[in-house]
Amino acid sequence: MLTMQTLCPHPIIQAPMAGGATTPELVAAVSNAGGLGSLAAPLLAPLAIIEQAEHIRRLTDKPFAINLFVQTRPQIDFAALESAKLLLQGVCRELGWDSLPTPTRWCEDFEAQLDALITARPAVASFTFDVLHGSQMQRLHDAGILVVGTATNLPEAIVWQAMGADAVCLQGVEAGGHRGTFIGAQKDSSLGISALLAACRPHLHIPVIAAGGIMDGKAITDALAAGADMVQMGSAFLTTRESGINQAYKQRLLEARSDTTRQTRAFSGRIARGLDNHFMQVMAEVADKVPAYPIQNALTGAIRAAAAKDNRTEFMSLWVGQGVAASRDLPVAELMAVLVAEMQA
Amino acid sequence: MLTMQTLCPHPIIQAPMAGGATTPELVAAVSNAGGLGSLAAPLLAPLAIIEQAEHIRRLTDKPFAINLFVQTRPQIDFAALESAKLLLQGVCRELGWDSLPTPTRWCEDFEAQLDALITARPAVASFTFDVLHGSQMQRLHDAGILVVGTATNLPEAIVWQAMGADAVCLQGVEAGGHRGTFIGAQKDSSLGISALLAACRPHLHIPVIAAGGIMDGKAITDALAAGADMVQMGSAFLTTRESGINQAYKQRLLEARSDTTRQTRAFSGRIARGLDNHFMQVMAEVADKVPAYPIQNALTGAIRAAAAKDNRTEFMSLWVGQGVAASRDLPVAELMAVLVAEMQA
Repeated sequence: MLTMQTLCPHPIIQAPMAGGATTPELVAAVSNAGGLGSLAAPLLAPLAIIEQAEHIRRLTDKPFAINLFVQTRPQIDFAALESAKLLLQGVCRELGWDSLPTPTRWCEDFEAQLDALITARPAVASFTFDVLHGSQMQRLHDAGILVVGTATNLPEAIVWQAMGADAVCLQGVEAGGHRGTFIGAQKDSSLGISALLAACRPHLHIPVIAAGGIMDGKAITDALAAGADMVQMGSAFLTTRESGINQAYKQRLLEARSDTTRQTRAFSGRIARGLDNHFMQVMAEVADKVPAYPIQNALTGAIRAAAAKDNRTEFMSLWVGQGVAASRDLPVAELMAVLVAEMQA
Repeated sequence: MLTMQTLCPHPIIQAPMAGGATTPELVAAVSNAGGLGSLAAPLLAPLAIIEQAEHIRRLTDKPFAINLFVQTRPQIDFAALESAKLLLQGVCRELGWDSLPTPTRWCEDFEAQLDALITARPAVASFTFDVLHGSQMQRLHDAGILVVGTATNLPEAIVWQAMGADAVCLQGVEAGGHRGTFIGAQKDSSLGISALLAACRPHLHIPVIAAGGIMDGKAITDALAAGADMVQMGSAFLTTRESGINQAYKQRLLEARSDTTRQTRAFSGRIARGLDNHFMQVMAEVADKVPAYPIQNALTGAIRAAAAKDNRTEFMSLWVGQGVAASRDLPVAELMAVLVAEMQA
């Protein structure tokens, strides 16, 4: 049976990044190069999860992971929804829109996605945004799937371990995209990866994965020396040839010369890190008032989709971590070879 | 704001007992007598939860609790279902039935029940069978509802505490009805309440509720001396005048002269303790093969309902704990007064 320790030759997990970056080509290329590729499935319909897993299997016979957001049916408060749409009125005006379209759905059904994931049967299932119920953990284990939970503070790491997770991914505040906090306020879980590792490692007997700002072999070696068993890297793979992100987004990442990221709730209702841009700036004052994920995420979906189509990066969510200035424009196989060489240097 | 410590004058929680025992009259009588009454809502439709909470509020202005089973949509394996029905064929024959009717539903929708519970806004919400997602815990706390989780082993107690529960109810193996185990196998979590308290107390800084076999004031005092902050008693209230159980079932409990209970999976697919009877005996050999809760529970529903209608206790689930021989036939107010007097003796 596979274990976290025998999953792949290199201690490198390509982070799941919801929204299109993790193409089957990207996931398979990482696994083929000796890392663990991860399909980000939170925004995929159940059948698409199964199809993309099949696509990955046509490209590699190596283990890979599928990631989901653990979420329940959203609570819709229609009065609050009208207020939330008003908060986006200025942005709509800038885009020349009369009004914001109401989304046809708020999010995928998590239980149906989990059924699909179990059908797809990847080597690893990773989760963020919340902890699983014990019965869900049991179903994954019964299917022979290793479970990785995301933690942004010590209580979350302890919960995942006690629930039987096979590994816990510690998400430092440097990380791009959404914070996975599920115990306490998101804004209160803001440790950098070094401090988070130091706080959690003594309490964990399961493998620990370090995430947040890791962009090169030196940072990998440092994380391993600090007690991590593996690292998870997202931003480093965003600019690879196989990454599915929009070309204008990729260009913005490659042009970054310093950490120009910030955290915002404005796009999705959950704190997430990305390149600072016009949308974040005009929404900064009201970012605390937008409805929680997935409501705000669905509300801004039309804005972000239209912006991506027109390459208007100032209105897109340009998720990336604090290491953005170290982005490299390489095919995955080359990036993996460089990372391994840097680790050995 | 209410806390677990200021909920009620006496450290006595009437345990939720699904299936009809916890009438609004019972719940209100316990709260009116200075304990904490609990409405068992796991088998109630969402609207019924709201209605019964309103009914309780017409009978008392004191705090009360509502309890739910944390469960996900059941996985239906239709081939396994046919095998499961075959396992019940002998019982059907004894009842003179040609075949077992297929249930029209397997269980209530937990998320809809939770929405209803939050609308009903009891002082306390207690949960068993699994742990909540963090987002569900947050919604309860945002509504000002105290959360009590059920644990049958140390990891479960640690998980509930880390998730932010306001108290944890330790369920000793003596307890009647279903085991709440959600980490590890149900059969492996079989500590008696004394051993469970000793194992968990040093690791818990939140209030601890002891459950399992507690029938009189002496046992309450002992549990408090052993480190419990409160006790939860179910069986002691099953035979009160306000209890909603079938009269024949009540008679069986009052007639018990010793612990004639045993544990079985046969009724529901989850290990539960009740009076040994014919159904348990004829199903003993196949009890390990029946499908998991809630499938088996729904499958045997017609059998149990028909048996209750005809007072055929040998085919009913006579859930009760190991203290059954100490059952008393009293109105709730008198039982509470006796318990308090015994505690002071």
